[in-house]
Amino acid sequence: MAPRHTPGRVVLVGGGPGDPDLLTVRALRHLRSADVVVADRLGPTSVLDDLPLRVEIIDVGKAPGQHAMSQERIDELIVERARRGQVVVRLKGGDPFVFGRGGEEVLACRDAGVEVEVVPGISSALAVPALAGVPSTHRGVVGAVHVTHGHEPLTATATSAVVTGEATLVVLMGVARLAEHAASLLAAGAAPSTPVVVVESGSTPDERVTRAPLSQVAAVAAQIGVRSPAVVVVGAVAAEGFLDARALVEAVA
Amino acid sequence: MAPRHTPGRVVLVGGGPGDPDLLTVRALRHLRSADVVVADRLGPTSVLDDLPLRVEIIDVGKAPGQHAMSQERIDELIVERARRGQVVVRLKGGDPFVFGRGGEEVLACRDAGVEVEVVPGISSALAVPALAGVPSTHRGVVGAVHVTHGHEPLTATATSAVVTGEATLVVLMGVARLAEHAASLLAAGAAPSTPVVVVESGSTPDERVTRAPLSQVAAVAAQIGVRSPAVVVVGAVAAEGFLDARALVEAVA
Repeated sequence: MAPRHTPGRVVLVGGGPGDPDLLTVRALRHLRSADVVVADRLGPTSVLDDLPLRVEIIDVGKAPGQHAMSQERIDELIVERARRGQVVVRLKGGDPFVFGRGGEEVLACRDAGVEVEVVPGISSALAVPALAGVPSTHRGVVGAVHVTHGHEPLTATATSAVVTGEATLVVLMGVARLAEHAASLLAAGAAPSTPVVVVESGSTPDERVTRAPLSQVAAVAAQIGVRSPAVVVVGAVAAEGFLDARALVEAVA
Repeated sequence: MAPRHTPGRVVLVGGGPGDPDLLTVRALRHLRSADVVVADRLGPTSVLDDLPLRVEIIDVGKAPGQHAMSQERIDELIVERARRGQVVVRLKGGDPFVFGRGGEEVLACRDAGVEVEVVPGISSALAVPALAGVPSTHRGVVGAVHVTHGHEPLTATATSAVVTGEATLVVLMGVARLAEHAASLLAAGAAPSTPVVVVESGSTPDERVTRAPLSQVAAVAAQIGVRSPAVVVVGAVAAEGFLDARALVEAVA
């Protein structure tokens, strides 16, 4: 029998927002056949408990107030393990290419001559609102969705999405700057009544959904102590009972 | 033993871009335990062949040039079957809430008093580019993604995404208007060299990836006969070899 040739490689796997049921079939297959899984704090971490015992698990996650592995060290780790001949699954929350720094890990692998594959995941940006009953788009209401991170001031394009109503605005990692973002949208002319929904810990048992108009969302969030991870959705689709609208219209007519 | 109470209900399942491996674990579980599956033409249709024989399958897909069931008739069908006491899985391509008209089906169920659940799916808008090596976002390059359908002229917000470079623009169902969209972006001041990638039949064996600068993409697409379904991505991330950039930069430096 010829010797089995098993060169090392890296698979960047999008794990979805947290519930292991929202892993794809392809993601689960890769996880189960990995030599080593390098996992973040966010995403479907509970799936790690159910992997075969031979699968080594390395936690590089960033818990608040604790040391976490730097991106550069993670890049080095996955490359080094692949060079040892291992099949490395890099499990990331959501989708690797939606603020997941997946592109940086692809670059690190390619620079090192290591084969790398990307498995898309359910992005929290779209799925967390969906699970809370908030559609990203809705025919006749909004025909686009604009997804941004919340680490910086909103761009002119993100602001335009809200002011014109041309796109639903979804902000990931936006809790720290929520008040600033709301204020800048109002200053740019967004209606104070623009609906906002904040979904904390989406898809997990700790999920909490909070709705408020744009003019009040910062105060409400501060009052109830909104915490990361959270997805913020701004626009008509975020209104309370948006998907009961037809019944409401008919009742009023 | 008490009689089992099994009221009918509807589950709107996002099936992802086409490869059945990109179904979620939750989606697959619902499909296998359904009484009836109501399926579109797009999405992971091959999974239907592997369902248990007792699962009835109704194809409501719209093939070009053929009659398809209207949205209103689909709404009636899923409600009627649920009222019979059946568990109805409505299998949709991509994500039900990203141009999937899932909101309309939720409304139809709620108006009829039928229980309805949404299972998010891998959206073609993000996954099809990812599978072709195109990241939606990339730290230091672009921190947002704007997803729209291509049935109408581009909005001011979508145009702003490209002209400012503030967001990657992703257009679904945009083949018919590709030339018009490119022309309007150029007229608004987008650089003629702005990279564009068109991915036809993403995630399937028929996938074809075509790259061209914005000023030439319409001509190139016409020449090679680009066909639906296709995802169009406009922005820096669409450049040939974007994820080889570091190696390139180092080679040049």
